[in-house]
Amino acid sequence: MLGVIGLGNRLFFVPLIVAFALSGAGHYLHWNMTLQFVISAIAIIFVAGFLGRATESVSHYAGQRLGGFLNATFGNAAELIIAIFLVRDGLFDMVKASLTGAIIGNLLLVLGLSVFVGGLKFKTQRFNADLAGMNGSLMLLAVIALFVPAAFFTTHSINAEGTKTLSLVVAGILIVAYLLWLVFSMITHKDMLSDESERAEEREEESPLWSKKLSIIFLVISTVMVALVSEWLVETLDTFTSQFGLSELFVGAFVIAIVGNAAEHSAAVMLAMKNKIGAAVEIAIGSSLQIALFVAPVLVFISSLFGNTMDIVFTTIEMVAIGVAVFIAKSISQDGRTNWYEGLLLLVVYIILGVSFYLV
Amino acid sequence: MLGVIGLGNRLFFVPLIVAFALSGAGHYLHWNMTLQFVISAIAIIFVAGFLGRATESVSHYAGQRLGGFLNATFGNAAELIIAIFLVRDGLFDMVKASLTGAIIGNLLLVLGLSVFVGGLKFKTQRFNADLAGMNGSLMLLAVIALFVPAAFFTTHSINAEGTKTLSLVVAGILIVAYLLWLVFSMITHKDMLSDESERAEEREEESPLWSKKLSIIFLVISTVMVALVSEWLVETLDTFTSQFGLSELFVGAFVIAIVGNAAEHSAAVMLAMKNKIGAAVEIAIGSSLQIALFVAPVLVFISSLFGNTMDIVFTTIEMVAIGVAVFIAKSISQDGRTNWYEGLLLLVVYIILGVSFYLV
Amino acid sequence: MLGVIGLGNRLFFVPLIVAFALSGAGHYLHWNMTLQFVISAIAIIFVAGFLGRATESVSHYAGQRLGGFLNATFGNAAELIIAIFLVRDGLFDMVKASLTGAIIGNLLLVLGLSVFVGGLKFKTQRFNADLAGMNGSLMLLAVIALFVPAAFFTTHSINAEGTKTLSLVVAGILIVAYLLWLVFSMITHKDMLSDESERAEEREEESPLWSKKLSIIFLVISTVMVALVSEWLVETLDTFTSQFGLSELFVGAFVIAIVGNAAEHSAAVMLAMKNKIGAAVEIAIGSSLQIALFVAPVLVFISSLFGNTMDIVFTTIEMVAIGVAVFIAKSISQDGRTNWYEGLLLLVVYIILGVSFYLV
Repeated sequence: MLGVIGLGNRLFFVPLIVAFALSGAGHYLHWNMTLQFVISAIAIIFVAGFLGRATESVSHYAGQRLGGFLNATFGNAAELIIAIFLVRDGLFDMVKASLTGAIIGNLLLVLGLSVFVGGLKFKTQRFNADLAGMNGSLMLLAVIALFVPAAFFTTHSINAEGTKTLSLVVAGILIVAYLLWLVFSMITHKDMLSDESERAEEREEESPLWSKKLSIIFLVISTVMVALVSEWLVETLDTFTSQFGLSELFVGAFVIAIVGNAAEHSAAVMLAMKNKIGAAVEIAIGSSLQIALFVAPVLVFISSLFGNTMDIVFTTIEMVAIGVAVFIAKSISQDGRTNWYEGLLLLVVYIILGVSFYLV
Repeated sequence: MLGVIGLGNRLFFVPLIVAFALSGAGHYLHWNMTLQFVISAIAIIFVAGFLGRATESVSHYAGQRLGGFLNATFGNAAELIIAIFLVRDGLFDMVKASLTGAIIGNLLLVLGLSVFVGGLKFKTQRFNADLAGMNGSLMLLAVIALFVPAAFFTTHSINAEGTKTLSLVVAGILIVAYLLWLVFSMITHKDMLSDESERAEEREEESPLWSKKLSIIFLVISTVMVALVSEWLVETLDTFTSQFGLSELFVGAFVIAIVGNAAEHSAAVMLAMKNKIGAAVEIAIGSSLQIALFVAPVLVFISSLFGNTMDIVFTTIEMVAIGVAVFIAKSISQDGRTNWYEGLLLLVVYIILGVSFYLV
Repeated sequence: MLGVIGLGNRLFFVPLIVAFALSGAGHYLHWNMTLQFVISAIAIIFVAGFLGRATESVSHYAGQRLGGFLNATFGNAAELIIAIFLVRDGLFDMVKASLTGAIIGNLLLVLGLSVFVGGLKFKTQRFNADLAGMNGSLMLLAVIALFVPAAFFTTHSINAEGTKTLSLVVAGILIVAYLLWLVFSMITHKDMLSDESERAEEREEESPLWSKKLSIIFLVISTVMVALVSEWLVETLDTFTSQFGLSELFVGAFVIAIVGNAAEHSAAVMLAMKNKIGAAVEIAIGSSLQIALFVAPVLVFISSLFGNTMDIVFTTIEMVAIGVAVFIAKSISQDGRTNWYEGLLLLVVYIILGVSFYLV
């Protein structure tokens, strides 16, 4: 869905290949670091879009349930791959900053822009209030799972070793909770959470772009491309950060997060403009839930495999940012109706956080 | 509206002029400080009522939209003027304490008393749930805007200089957000937020007291009177505080806040007793939103003009007080229905905070 | 109600007497401490069940209103009696840990298990949304009442002496608020908060087990038994805790809390399986509200009578645990509908907290 709606159709492969090739050339020919960063940042938008489109197409052939699952787990593959490279290099602080950025970017920027732009066109937009309620509770779980270990660690109730054990346990619990959420939302209570009005229309549009075989090949290719460009991008960050005097936190939480989510951004906004605010909300909130309940815990386990367990203790200001984003998004979405001013409120909170992180 | 309902009609000018004259006499003849404080505190109630009445009357002639805007911005003029004198004298702590007091006073005391008294007469009182939801989200924005700079400052992520820059940026953002809220609530979504049942009745009562010309003259005179009495009152505070062994915090957050909002108090309670709980909620919550999203940010800019920028970092206990008030008020108002026990809950939280501030 | 549903009928007295006798024998014959702990822990489950059954029966004869009041105040008698012994011995930390455990145990374990098990059988279970809203606001009051004194104490705004005064004042306010809640929920707004569908059925089942006279005798006897077993249990805790290397916090918050609430657990789960989720919610949330708004404040006054006032300042991690439990329970219950996944979310949070407390 992302790919089909978010980006052009035929004219897609040319810029994709050009951007990818330039990014690779920059990396292997040791171009100027800032130039490399800019090219890789642009390239990641295209390869992430390609991955989204391939996932969508494979999902179509896999049938509704498995397809939904694939869509949900592969949706944030780009972020996950970038983060794995950061974890391998032991850059835990930047991992956490980019996870923070991905969560607040989805909850505030993507959701905010969708609601705002959609609200300028339609006075009130509606979506399934049951879904809104469940989403709100899951977001709260995400905040709690980050908040509890940090509280125990900060008050010295648990030492560093205990914190790692606790991080692994909490990570395991969150993955189980997330998988059961897929069972709940795609199997046992599928009908309760769907938007009646949107479903009929959507089905029509969903004719797949590619054949079954081509879709699978493209899924493999696009994943490799995302992995490569991610690695090239990560290697430029150090220089780029020091060049512009930006903090790791700002780069991780805002620059990487905006780049890595570009495909979702455009897709969600375009859905909102077609009055499909339910689907836009699902992309924005669903994506942030995946990051918090699946990507972050998986990274804890992956770091453990690399022999250096990353704990789940975020800094106070990261937790403040996530907590603040969850509370305002929950407050705004809980009645299943949105208007332009609610979108503006989300954007306002995003700007306040952005300026704060910039000034660090 | 405030003036017409909250205070008597013909018998209004005599006590107004007497209180004002006595307050001036006390100040210039250097009466006993405690006496001066008491007289000024009484006088401020009357001049604030006069200002409210004049604003209301001017609003009537200005047409519904501009009138609403005037009413909204002049509604807290008394608080603003008192605060400007405090800012000029560099008494930033007392400014913040009085802003805190005005916010929690409106959300807990004014709203609590209205809901409680109204609930004793009517089993369940109803108001527009859409307005309740939007109000809740705006209150959350106010908490976030105070909370984020404080979190960055407390964790040493930003130094004092950065905090001032951040304070000015946040203040600017809040003023824009507030002005757009006026656009939203008075222009684009006016009908969504109104109480159908109350509107009809209200229009009848709204025959203006004075001619257009007289209203404007009274607006100017009342503003000058508020400015004068505010200055006289502020000058007595130091002595009064030390005399009774009260903390600046308690005086700012409870004494000044109760005195400065006396007109709103009586108006809101009387509306609730007429089963117009929607209008009472609008006065109480609307007023606290103005303080947080408009008065406080404007004071940051005014302090900057005086050459000494006041930051927006409130103390932990002030933030706790505001956060606590917002959460309980949001929880109670969000279903658009109220009863006496919900009013009691608000009052209970106000008393807990009051005792805590008194014991500081 | 608890006793009738939660435990067998005729076969109840034999294990009750055996467990009580063994527990007494262990205590007076100085058996192995761990064995004593295990026996007393089992015995407390039976004597608490007996007390619950006796209370229920007396309530029946006392008429609906007084009966409801008795049920509400005696419902947590076991916890209260255990806590009084701890207060007498000055074990304030364990008192607070066990209060914390009782609150989160009811909100997360009892409610979570009921909603989860009930949700496996029924797709969506419904209960009175008005009650859910009021419960949510009361839970928030409980959090605020704990949070405000701690915030003032932690920021050094109030010294230890002031904190004790504040604790007594807050405790008094909470008791008044709780008594007025009984007036509200049982007298002035009884009909607003009841579940129409459940009431009719319940009345049929409520034929009392014992005669009026026997009920009163049993109430006295069961209270004495609870008091004795509680004392025996408390005396084993020190040894038991050090034997297994468990923290006071974990024992207080999880072991004692689970044991002391066993009767409520089974009763609530069985009600949920009969699709009476409203009654299950009332037991779980109602019980945690009693602990926070009545039992805890009463203990402050009792400690004051013993000459050593216990303050109401909980540790940061206890407050985090209570706050987290209240927010997730509020978020899940506020729409008056539940499903299995919402139950799971509550259990997940309970497990996260349990592991954290265990690792302390």
